[in-house]
Amino acid sequence: MKMKHKKKLPKIVIIGAGFGGITLAKSFKKKPIDVLLIDQNNYHNFQPLMYQIATGGLEPDSIAYPVRRIFRRYKNVRFRMAKVNRVEIEKKKLRTSIGNIAYDYLVIATGSKNNFFNFEPVKDALLSLKSIPDALNLRSFIFQNLERSLVVKRSGEKTLLMNIAIVGGGPAGVELAGALAEMKRYVIPKDFPELDLSKMHINLYQSSPNVLDVMSEEASAKTLIYLKKLGINVYLNTRANSYNGSVLTLADGTTFPTDTVIWTAGVKAAPIGGIPANSIVAGNRIAVSKYNQVLHTENIFAIGDVAAHITKENPKGLPMLAPVAQQQGKLLAKNLVLLTQGKSMEEFVYKDNGVMATIGRKKAVVDLPHWKFQGAFAWLVWMFVHILSLVGFRNKAVAFVGWMANYFTYDRPLGLILRPYYRNYKKK
Amino acid sequence: MKMKHKKKLPKIVIIGAGFGGITLAKSFKKKPIDVLLIDQNNYHNFQPLMYQIATGGLEPDSIAYPVRRIFRRYKNVRFRMAKVNRVEIEKKKLRTSIGNIAYDYLVIATGSKNNFFNFEPVKDALLSLKSIPDALNLRSFIFQNLERSLVVKRSGEKTLLMNIAIVGGGPAGVELAGALAEMKRYVIPKDFPELDLSKMHINLYQSSPNVLDVMSEEASAKTLIYLKKLGINVYLNTRANSYNGSVLTLADGTTFPTDTVIWTAGVKAAPIGGIPANSIVAGNRIAVSKYNQVLHTENIFAIGDVAAHITKENPKGLPMLAPVAQQQGKLLAKNLVLLTQGKSMEEFVYKDNGVMATIGRKKAVVDLPHWKFQGAFAWLVWMFVHILSLVGFRNKAVAFVGWMANYFTYDRPLGLILRPYYRNYKKK
Repeated sequence: MKMKHKKKLPKIVIIGAGFGGITLAKSFKKKPIDVLLIDQNNYHNFQPLMYQIATGGLEPDSIAYPVRRIFRRYKNVRFRMAKVNRVEIEKKKLRTSIGNIAYDYLVIATGSKNNFFNFEPVKDALLSLKSIPDALNLRSFIFQNLERSLVVKRSGEKTLLMNIAIVGGGPAGVELAGALAEMKRYVIPKDFPELDLSKMHINLYQSSPNVLDVMSEEASAKTLIYLKKLGINVYLNTRANSYNGSVLTLADGTTFPTDTVIWTAGVKAAPIGGIPANSIVAGNRIAVSKYNQVLHTENIFAIGDVAAHITKENPKGLPMLAPVAQQQGKLLAKNLVLLTQGKSMEEFVYKDNGVMATIGRKKAVVDLPHWKFQGAFAWLVWMFVHILSLVGFRNKAVAFVGWMANYFTYDRPLGLILRPYYRNYKKK
Repeated sequence: MKMKHKKKLPKIVIIGAGFGGITLAKSFKKKPIDVLLIDQNNYHNFQPLMYQIATGGLEPDSIAYPVRRIFRRYKNVRFRMAKVNRVEIEKKKLRTSIGNIAYDYLVIATGSKNNFFNFEPVKDALLSLKSIPDALNLRSFIFQNLERSLVVKRSGEKTLLMNIAIVGGGPAGVELAGALAEMKRYVIPKDFPELDLSKMHINLYQSSPNVLDVMSEEASAKTLIYLKKLGINVYLNTRANSYNGSVLTLADGTTFPTDTVIWTAGVKAAPIGGIPANSIVAGNRIAVSKYNQVLHTENIFAIGDVAAHITKENPKGLPMLAPVAQQQGKLLAKNLVLLTQGKSMEEFVYKDNGVMATIGRKKAVVDLPHWKFQGAFAWLVWMFVHILSLVGFRNKAVAFVGWMANYFTYDRPLGLILRPYYRNYKKK
């Protein structure tokens, strides 16, 4: 019977066009599945290079790409730009900013957002790096402050405008610190010869005994050396206590006067509403099975930062890393096809291919499963891997040319204050 | 006497880092003049390509460049980012957002801004092209509306979101219309296959009998043919009367439902406050002598769009074009050096090197003093001249590569809604 072929395809709705959601949707290519991908932005962005936007090393189009363009040749994938408010599990539908959306299977790939902990009440006074507008605001803010520091009269005010505090010594904080230190050394003296840069301090605060503590001790130790060489004041075992818009106060009472506090001290998962309370675990993550199925639900799955498969080996779930999301997305596509065919699914097993971070030019730390190394060669490896990862991005070549130019000239090309940014915060 | 060499240099303050101000400041290189350049933005931008930003053909860094970077090797040129409120002629000082600034000689190069005429009361409902944020807002707005038109239910609402009106058929309006028409034909169908593009109308309204009426009749006639070929509805001798946020009404009572009205129908000069009233002429311009000296003042000069040297041949002053500003800037630098040496100045004579405009790819119109031509060769000339004009811009090569890619693929690479834009206007 011909009618058989016209059977309605199972409809899978994916929320989030990050590494997990994009990989998942791509893996459904030519499969008998009707895919709807939803994101509140119309682009996918390459989060690991966000600090390059903030420091003017790259422009947004180098690390962001329109979702629709990624799926031009995918007949079974549609995209909607919308904010998802909550899922109504009983009715198998989503409540969104563009109306209700029904699903047969739902995949939550909504990632993570800043966790400000005790700084939540003053979060509007902080700068951060989680989105492209965040990074562009940070860039404008730094250059606005440099301009202002030329014209303020009081020395204290100058110090305030020039000092920079980074709270959090994970990969984001460390990579940003490295880029800012190089900007201070190689770029600002050329563009602001009137400024006395001895008044500019870049302080990095890390609550634990090591920077980059997700990596090996070897990598952490070397990173600390690199940071100090770049002139960054690194404070280990140091917690930030409060900020009043002008002065950052540490747990031991020490103060640091600064207009610029950049928050990289933690993230928490960003699940949608409507998930059963007993499926939410530490860090706001959604508890999933080994098939990435959300516990206590049917037909709902979660991948990437927002999902946590809690086991004896990983009592907090897997780390919030792009490769985890990508590997889960890939397998889940396969599993959902199996599921719709009434077959049994495959368990997810994470394959750790290593972690790396860069601290300024020619310096990086790389932890591979059986090999750890640091220095200039590590930097080349870092560069190579990141260029390759930008596959599918229009500006792969442009980014590469830009970086190479940076590398040879020790220069950041950009400093346009296209949209001045003022914090929505009244100093006390 | 050694002291003689320490004599204070004459201080020239230039307001505005457009084509005029930048050329003037550059021309003081190694001259015994102390130059202070002021602009409210920290970058110079290449205004003629603004429509490329709006339509996603180029990113801002391709047409904007930090002022400080331009003057890195100029020991006698300093820059301040500030808004100038007014000049106090008696005291020879400026009142600015960063305090008072004294001058020996002042040069006003503040350019022009939108003139909304009878649309002034509804200007917040319009989009425009005068600045990079304007152009980025326009880009976001168009893509936001395309996303929304996919999800609205009523056909009338869809039409409203997809229709585009351009008011003004000068170079800005024509070039923008061409780029939008190509976007509609070659890009939107690929990214929004679900949309019925027969519902999208691009209307261009020109109050006079010709589009591009600053150019030759030959160029105007050919431009009209090009625009129609691209599917643009061109209305000549047509004045827009009013807009209520949803419906544009013409002088003859005809209406056009559209969410997007782009204003390119006129500019007026943007002088600073404090200029004697009897020195302000038609279009808000500042009347100047043949030496670009502001009438009824001493030590104050004006160049570019903001200045008008009224003569029998040019009863409205010279046209508001980049080459006029650049040529005036170059001569004024020479004249100010002569003046500080007590010598007599040279008269300004404008050398018209021609005008050109492009209407989509492979189509342009060029009016040289003794040769007018249109078509594909004109487009190559246009391209060549604009690439050369971007000299001093970091991204000369990047812009060129991007354009070439566009040319071969008939594609606009960009559509990132980095900052959603909502008009600050309540529909009536």
